[in-house]
Amino acid sequence: MASAIITSSKLYPFPSSSLKPSLFLRSTFLPFPSSITLPSFPSKSCPKSLPISSSLNPNPPSSQRRPPYIPNHIPDPNYVRVFDTTLRDGEQSPGATLTSKEKLDIARQLAKLGVDIIEAGFPAASKDDFEAVKTIAKEVGNAVDGNGYVPVICGLSRCNEKDIKTAWEAVKYAKRPRIHTFIATSAIHLEYKLRKSKEEVLDIARNMVRFARSLGCNDVEFSPEDAGRSDREFLYEILGEVIKAGATTLNIPDTVGITMPSEFGQLIADIKANTPGIENVIISTHCQNDLGLSTANTIAGACAGARQVEVTINGIGERAGNASMEEVVMALKCRGEHVLGGLHTGINTRHIVMASKMVEENTGLHVQPHKAIVGANAFAHESGIHQDGMLKHKGTYEIISPEDIGLERSNEAGIVLGKLSGRHALSDRLKELGYELDDVQLGNIFWRFKEVAEQKKRVTDADLVALVSDEVFQPDVVWKLLDLQVTCGTLGLSTATVKLIDADGREHVACSVGTGPVDSAYKAVDLIIKESVSLLEYSMNAVTEGIDAIATTRVLIRVEKSHLSTHALTGELVHRTFSGTGAGMDIVVSSVKAYVSALNKMLGFKEQYPAKASSIERTPASS
Amino acid sequence: MASAIITSSKLYPFPSSSLKPSLFLRSTFLPFPSSITLPSFPSKSCPKSLPISSSLNPNPPSSQRRPPYIPNHIPDPNYVRVFDTTLRDGEQSPGATLTSKEKLDIARQLAKLGVDIIEAGFPAASKDDFEAVKTIAKEVGNAVDGNGYVPVICGLSRCNEKDIKTAWEAVKYAKRPRIHTFIATSAIHLEYKLRKSKEEVLDIARNMVRFARSLGCNDVEFSPEDAGRSDREFLYEILGEVIKAGATTLNIPDTVGITMPSEFGQLIADIKANTPGIENVIISTHCQNDLGLSTANTIAGACAGARQVEVTINGIGERAGNASMEEVVMALKCRGEHVLGGLHTGINTRHIVMASKMVEENTGLHVQPHKAIVGANAFAHESGIHQDGMLKHKGTYEIISPEDIGLERSNEAGIVLGKLSGRHALSDRLKELGYELDDVQLGNIFWRFKEVAEQKKRVTDADLVALVSDEVFQPDVVWKLLDLQVTCGTLGLSTATVKLIDADGREHVACSVGTGPVDSAYKAVDLIIKESVSLLEYSMNAVTEGIDAIATTRVLIRVEKSHLSTHALTGELVHRTFSGTGAGMDIVVSSVKAYVSALNKMLGFKEQYPAKASSIERTPASS
Repeated sequence: MASAIITSSKLYPFPSSSLKPSLFLRSTFLPFPSSITLPSFPSKSCPKSLPISSSLNPNPPSSQRRPPYIPNHIPDPNYVRVFDTTLRDGEQSPGATLTSKEKLDIARQLAKLGVDIIEAGFPAASKDDFEAVKTIAKEVGNAVDGNGYVPVICGLSRCNEKDIKTAWEAVKYAKRPRIHTFIATSAIHLEYKLRKSKEEVLDIARNMVRFARSLGCNDVEFSPEDAGRSDREFLYEILGEVIKAGATTLNIPDTVGITMPSEFGQLIADIKANTPGIENVIISTHCQNDLGLSTANTIAGACAGARQVEVTINGIGERAGNASMEEVVMALKCRGEHVLGGLHTGINTRHIVMASKMVEENTGLHVQPHKAIVGANAFAHESGIHQDGMLKHKGTYEIISPEDIGLERSNEAGIVLGKLSGRHALSDRLKELGYELDDVQLGNIFWRFKEVAEQKKRVTDADLVALVSDEVFQPDVVWKLLDLQVTCGTLGLSTATVKLIDADGREHVACSVGTGPVDSAYKAVDLIIKESVSLLEYSMNAVTEGIDAIATTRVLIRVEKSHLSTHALTGELVHRTFSGTGAGMDIVVSSVKAYVSALNKMLGFKEQYPAKASSIERTPASS
Repeated sequence: MASAIITSSKLYPFPSSSLKPSLFLRSTFLPFPSSITLPSFPSKSCPKSLPISSSLNPNPPSSQRRPPYIPNHIPDPNYVRVFDTTLRDGEQSPGATLTSKEKLDIARQLAKLGVDIIEAGFPAASKDDFEAVKTIAKEVGNAVDGNGYVPVICGLSRCNEKDIKTAWEAVKYAKRPRIHTFIATSAIHLEYKLRKSKEEVLDIARNMVRFARSLGCNDVEFSPEDAGRSDREFLYEILGEVIKAGATTLNIPDTVGITMPSEFGQLIADIKANTPGIENVIISTHCQNDLGLSTANTIAGACAGARQVEVTINGIGERAGNASMEEVVMALKCRGEHVLGGLHTGINTRHIVMASKMVEENTGLHVQPHKAIVGANAFAHESGIHQDGMLKHKGTYEIISPEDIGLERSNEAGIVLGKLSGRHALSDRLKELGYELDDVQLGNIFWRFKEVAEQKKRVTDADLVALVSDEVFQPDVVWKLLDLQVTCGTLGLSTATVKLIDADGREHVACSVGTGPVDSAYKAVDLIIKESVSLLEYSMNAVTEGIDAIATTRVLIRVEKSHLSTHALTGELVHRTFSGTGAGMDIVVSSVKAYVSALNKMLGFKEQYPAKASSIERTPASS
């Protein structure tokens, strides 16, 4: 599986003379601000007739630089802003709860990617959510790089003063703070969720955008929830009103993921053509993936004039998730220049793999092997006896080079590390696998690596990945596993003895029987830690190349009647869940480490009830 | 997670007067055969302006019946044939090898779904592939149902006489046999893979289609591989020639998954407008998913005039896989009537969940939780304290009813079974979970269920799923695990003793030490079975609701230097790999069961070298 990797971009044998001039395509994108009467029919902006062979270009010219940031205007008419909502919409997925530390780590990685806007959370959901957004605003939102880039830090809020004020209190520390407020506009939501008339909703939207601006925030995004199913005339009206009230970005969500790409493109085009004042704001897309069309819808939206795309890493999110950042960004990178009229983003795609792995590990939402771009098989072919001619020309089947997304392979066979390998070789290999670690992390991994190398002849890539997941993606330690001893089998009466050490260095020992080795060990842990938790999920990462490899176990736990958080869209109170991972050559040991890790994550999470727990039923301007 | 399920189609409160008449849309689809000069611009066939709220219709009128099968003509101009290639292109995924029995099971399920064409395999790949296709042709290809429906059974072949003859020998037993032959037409493939001129390729294609017809096959599909990157004029020419030679379906693959939906739609429209004789054949799509756009591309192709779509269950396939059947079919079901000009399929979507589970279990390619339609979270919301008004109107966030795809939930809480539950209750619950089992299977599950219920108070849905996977998706038994005893822990020296029983009923006992409990147990198994296999992958299914639940383990093994098979596209010899699953409340026990299951699958697989192993390098007409 590790074979068959080669850079295809170098291989296309077509003469450059077959490249048709593409400048005429750009003329269909009027410089911003554009006329509002532009009949922006999506298929016109994204012409279809260029031969594909001439339009593959995974490495567009470096002249496509990031334009300066102005909230309601992008000086480069073809630049598409990437708005990442992994930390807000993505974290809303069942079981994907992230701690503040994990959120900060991911936010830092998003900044490395060069994401234009990071939606860091929904500050009114709970005290912990508020603190996480505030920390990201202070740290990531102020880390200006050499080119003057710093991500906008955005906080979500429902359309009420309390939410908006809370969001502002969290994001205001960023160099470029943004408030994102939303209210539903479709008939079904108005009737059953809001129980309000169109006029009432219009009033709320206008007043709340104005309120956000009055706090001193000059970057306000407004979303008409369920826009796809909303009455068009009402949509144009409410959008026009919030523009007047000071909104700088209008986000158009396909909340239920039901639109076809052509329809969604038309929706954006219609909004662009019919909304008064639209030339003074940025149009944004937010596409759910219920029919598997979110990437296509997002691209159709950009072709029709949207210049911000809301995406998540790995496409995570509720139900079938959101548009995947990696898919949207790579589509624009591969085809933007020649097929999509010059559309481009500012994303440094070489950080995609690391971002994908980080989000997969921290949310516990695994990526299927055939996931586009970041799946384990995305660059793998059925291993076989390669014919020489084929090996030299992988461009026959591959369109993206693994290096483009930060996955480097030095050779076909891969480097195998052993006990004589040094720190430098380990660091190099980890980089090739997409992991960039700091010195402390690398130091910890190196010692674990040496331990494994003592027992195993070859330390494989899969072993390294398991070690990284065990060392890097871990919460702060409260409890730690010292020793474990288990007897089990078909004869029943599995018995486990565990020795844990607490934060003060005291040792605790307990034993228990159970239905299996993990059950008995977990029961023994429970006897020591005494937290009443439910185990919601238990799983193990695929391990490759021999059963003496390192197995990574993941668990998901929940504590009843605590760790409540408010769901942004439904306004419901939800229970927080916590994931933990553990790695080891003994699966029972790794299972216990995962359980202790999840308990540590839970114990480290600030125990707070949400700010609005008591007033959840309905506040005047709530959505 | 089991909550929040409700049929949304019943809930849309929009008055039917808001439904615009949609008949005018249909007029853009000319009755077949249509004029070849039709300027079939994709966006014209699939209008965009209907409000979404009025066009949701997951249950189209029953008048949309399956038209009679004529190879090169569909009497209903809006009917889209579904060509499933799970057993051919899907099985090509790394590690997805299926046994003949598994292929037959899946083919039967595909027939239940009402798939129009089943691509059952690539008969020239190996003797076993040949036999599997032949068995499916004989059994599934002759099971005509009450409405006269029987699936076409198709075999793939490269463009050479030997492959085509082998394919015909395998499929000819079906009531409706089809040969599918292909040759690459893009410059890069011609130069580096085929090393042939355009004229040579044209000759081969024409002659081989004619040869297929001469064998007595009146249903011949031709694919120009890498059509998306082929010179357009050459494409029209070769397609025109194969039509003259007798091809009845022309399949247009986006082999490298690089096209944008608008481009792919344009490609189909151009072929429809420029290929001589195109009005006498069916145009087909085959879209790879490298940029996450395969579903959108497939739909764009259908909008532009394709009337066959090539798809796989769960979207499996090499690299990022193919278009997902469930996504394409549900998109047409939800939006075909009103938004896509009346396009519809003959698929009975209620069998989707069972098909998805069967393919996931048998190929070992797991589906991510946020996979559209069939992912575990697709119908799940973060569990919370639901407000009464929201519960009653899930249409606010859900567009497809779980029942539509065969996932039935009787109530919000779900039924929990216990030791007093009878066979009937078990059968009902399994049906609600999407499993339709025969009496023998149900009988076996029932006894396992009783055993579990003795140990656990509540037998959950996850437990039932694990039991089904352990009982139903199993190869024929050669070796069986009788007893197992293991000691392990952080102190090292894991020790396992296993007792296996062979096909003749003899007991064998062995013990071994290892780096962990599974390693030591597998080594003990190896001491008894004495097959030299490599373990390629080891994983465990997510287990929910308590660690005393039943865990399902999956392993993937390979025997070096045997079980070779020819890869259809690259012509390479590939090693077969075998997956096995095992379930149990003790993860070490389930791990050993999975290993024994994989060994049984391998031992039951016909040990044969591929038919063309020696002549693999290059045959005159090979691709």
